[in-house]
Amino acid sequence: MNYYKEALAQAKKSLSEGGIPIGAVLVQEGEIIGKGHNQRVQQDNPILHGEMDCMQNAGRQQSYAGATMYTTLSPCMMCTGTILQFKIKKVVIGENVNFEGNIPFLQSQGVEVELLNDEETINMMATFIKENPTLWNEDIAE
Amino acid sequence: MNYYKEALAQAKKSLSEGGIPIGAVLVQEGEIIGKGHNQRVQQDNPILHGEMDCMQNAGRQQSYAGATMYTTLSPCMMCTGTILQFKIKKVVIGENVNFEGNIPFLQSQGVEVELLNDEETINMMATFIKENPTLWNEDIAE
Repeated sequence: MNYYKEALAQAKKSLSEGGIPIGAVLVQEGEIIGKGHNQRVQQDNPILHGEMDCMQNAGRQQSYAGATMYTTLSPCMMCTGTILQFKIKKVVIGENVNFEGNIPFLQSQGVEVELLNDEETINMMATFIKENPTLWNEDIAE
Repeated sequence: MNYYKEALAQAKKSLSEGGIPIGAVLVQEGEIIGKGHNQRVQQDNPILHGEMDCMQNAGRQQSYAGATMYTTLSPCMMCTGTILQFKIKKVVIGENVNFEGNIPFLQSQGVEVELLNDEETINMMATFIKENPTLWNEDIAE
């Protein structure tokens, strides 16, 4: 299964709902245990970035150690801290062109990072930011 | 107003609900704009630590810059990342005896930290951890 496509599908789902197009899935032992997308618009919720909604939907687990997070955008500090707190082993990132995120910090803390810089994801995010600058700045606290 | 007492009241509320006794309030320009407590048990939710529930309840704001977070326990990496992401200026921490948290990292990123090591908070948390070791370890992902 192409797990990254599932994360991208979550981003597109959010876009179709009028929301910010960032999605994530969490995979443990080859199984998707959580999916989610940004919920700022849909649930009027400032903490539910794609990765956070994904973790919330994965629910309470004995351990997330060894899991891989697939996310369409390089993680902000909230999501980076969350990845570290839950001991997620690897993060596959769709792109860091539209938002730099915290890849070196994740790596410095022992998290394996794979950066795709997927063209479809880059274009989708660039278009969204261009069309919704105020909402985007709110989401990244700028 | 003693804002810390409000955070402690949130922790006690959580305890009275059968939950983990960690609470937080967010104060901006002298006004409490959010309150919350750990919701792992009550909402079966792994991401709603006290600080996260507090941020969620504060809701969407133009900016949280300049705000002060009062929390009963030294913040884990998820909550630390969230404090940094939302540019919270200062964190008043009830105690770091039962959980070390990430005070030096917060300080290294420019966040002002005030550590109270409040005896009532320390005792409440110590008793909870002693009586609920499995739940506590789940909450801190140990």
